[in-house]
Amino acid sequence: MLDFGNETLVLTHDTMVEGVHFLPGQSGEDLAWKLVASNLSDLAAKGAEPVGVLLSYQLGNDDADFAAGLDRALAHYGVALLGGDTVSANGPRTLGLTAIGRATFRPVPSRSGAQVGDAVWLTGPVGGAMLGLEALQSGQGDSRLYRRGQALLAEGQALAPIVSAMMDVSDGLLLDARRMATASDVTIALERMAVPIATPEERRDAALRWGEDYQLLFTVPADAVIPVPAHPIGTVTSRGPEPLLLDGAPPAGQLGYEHG
Amino acid sequence: MLDFGNETLVLTHDTMVEGVHFLPGQSGEDLAWKLVASNLSDLAAKGAEPVGVLLSYQLGNDDADFAAGLDRALAHYGVALLGGDTVSANGPRTLGLTAIGRATFRPVPSRSGAQVGDAVWLTGPVGGAMLGLEALQSGQGDSRLYRRGQALLAEGQALAPIVSAMMDVSDGLLLDARRMATASDVTIALERMAVPIATPEERRDAALRWGEDYQLLFTVPADAVIPVPAHPIGTVTSRGPEPLLLDGAPPAGQLGYEHG
Repeated sequence: MLDFGNETLVLTHDTMVEGVHFLPGQSGEDLAWKLVASNLSDLAAKGAEPVGVLLSYQLGNDDADFAAGLDRALAHYGVALLGGDTVSANGPRTLGLTAIGRATFRPVPSRSGAQVGDAVWLTGPVGGAMLGLEALQSGQGDSRLYRRGQALLAEGQALAPIVSAMMDVSDGLLLDARRMATASDVTIALERMAVPIATPEERRDAALRWGEDYQLLFTVPADAVIPVPAHPIGTVTSRGPEPLLLDGAPPAGQLGYEHG
Repeated sequence: MLDFGNETLVLTHDTMVEGVHFLPGQSGEDLAWKLVASNLSDLAAKGAEPVGVLLSYQLGNDDADFAAGLDRALAHYGVALLGGDTVSANGPRTLGLTAIGRATFRPVPSRSGAQVGDAVWLTGPVGGAMLGLEALQSGQGDSRLYRRGQALLAEGQALAPIVSAMMDVSDGLLLDARRMATASDVTIALERMAVPIATPEERRDAALRWGEDYQLLFTVPADAVIPVPAHPIGTVTSRGPEPLLLDGAPPAGQLGYEHG
């Protein structure tokens, strides 16, 4: 965030590494889409309107495919490519994108503003990207929820004026909820069955831990009227021994995708 | 470049790859300095004042050293770290930086504005980084001109109001001069002996082709008064069969560092 002239600039950068953030052999078009969507999702969580991106591109064997996919993704979101840098190197490919946005509401929402007594909401189901990745790996089923995740820009802008805290759950709902709780110095208590999921019920625990769904997690005063489709999934309480509770207890196992 | 509120934003991104843009085993502090200086040099060439950077960092075995060096480099230039992304991956390391600047003069100088009849100037000697790298590789002599290149921010801001075209010569004077000529649709005729060099005379041809000196190359009307130390090195003529002439003939061999 940066005050710039009479505007507030919101900046975000995501780097994706082959074999870590994307599959070796995934199409250039898929990579371009994900790079754009993941960065614009960060802007969405700030209620920012994207104005442009800078690309850091490592050449591969699908450059034309990547360029075409980038054009499509940027056109989809109405965003301009402002510049960047292209390199050639051996080893796993690294791709980066810087997205530049304009704050539509100030103060810009952050993950650290959740207040005791707030309600916790989620814009939509999680677990879809997990199913999509499984479809891509097996060659069966619809992989689009993994390959064509949507940054919820309009939703983020509509929510910015009313939220006390907001972030996307691109690393997994439970992990990102715990990050919000820690940043806000509160405990977030989620109700497991209240979380909307895109998966069969038997996959619920995995869906709550899987990332790459660009849903927005936000907190609002308990009586707030929510201007976009969303689901109440918990409450904010004063900080206890555990920052995150799921049905009253700390969730077991890994909570989400920890970036190395 | 982006008009933003009542200001014009100047954005630049450089990516450095181990083994391509820096030596394996070079200190984290050196990497941090170069990453900052190379990006801020791009802002200097636009007459922009840097306001912040975003870092794309791939973890290595010198992370504390890198962090300390980054702090020092940013403090040297008075620039804030606004955010970024950290990844871990195998293979050659990739580091990227996005620099955000505020235009101090509009229109923002570009490489495409050189006019027939203009004089061509260079702010200072080239070839110093070449000597510095040789010192680093041999372990003898002063490597600081390679390891601590200076982005000429004050000079760029002083020049912005009077230049018709400006760029840094980080890829080599001859290569970058040809790029300026091509972008401006003119021919640039340089005088070989007029170019200031940091090397012994016998290395002149190499110095004209070596990059990583952050000198500024600029064109101005022939009668312009230059507000910073600089050297006239040639003239702009109408576009002939060759975009770049050195003592009247196209220079032989590779002109500079072609990024892959």
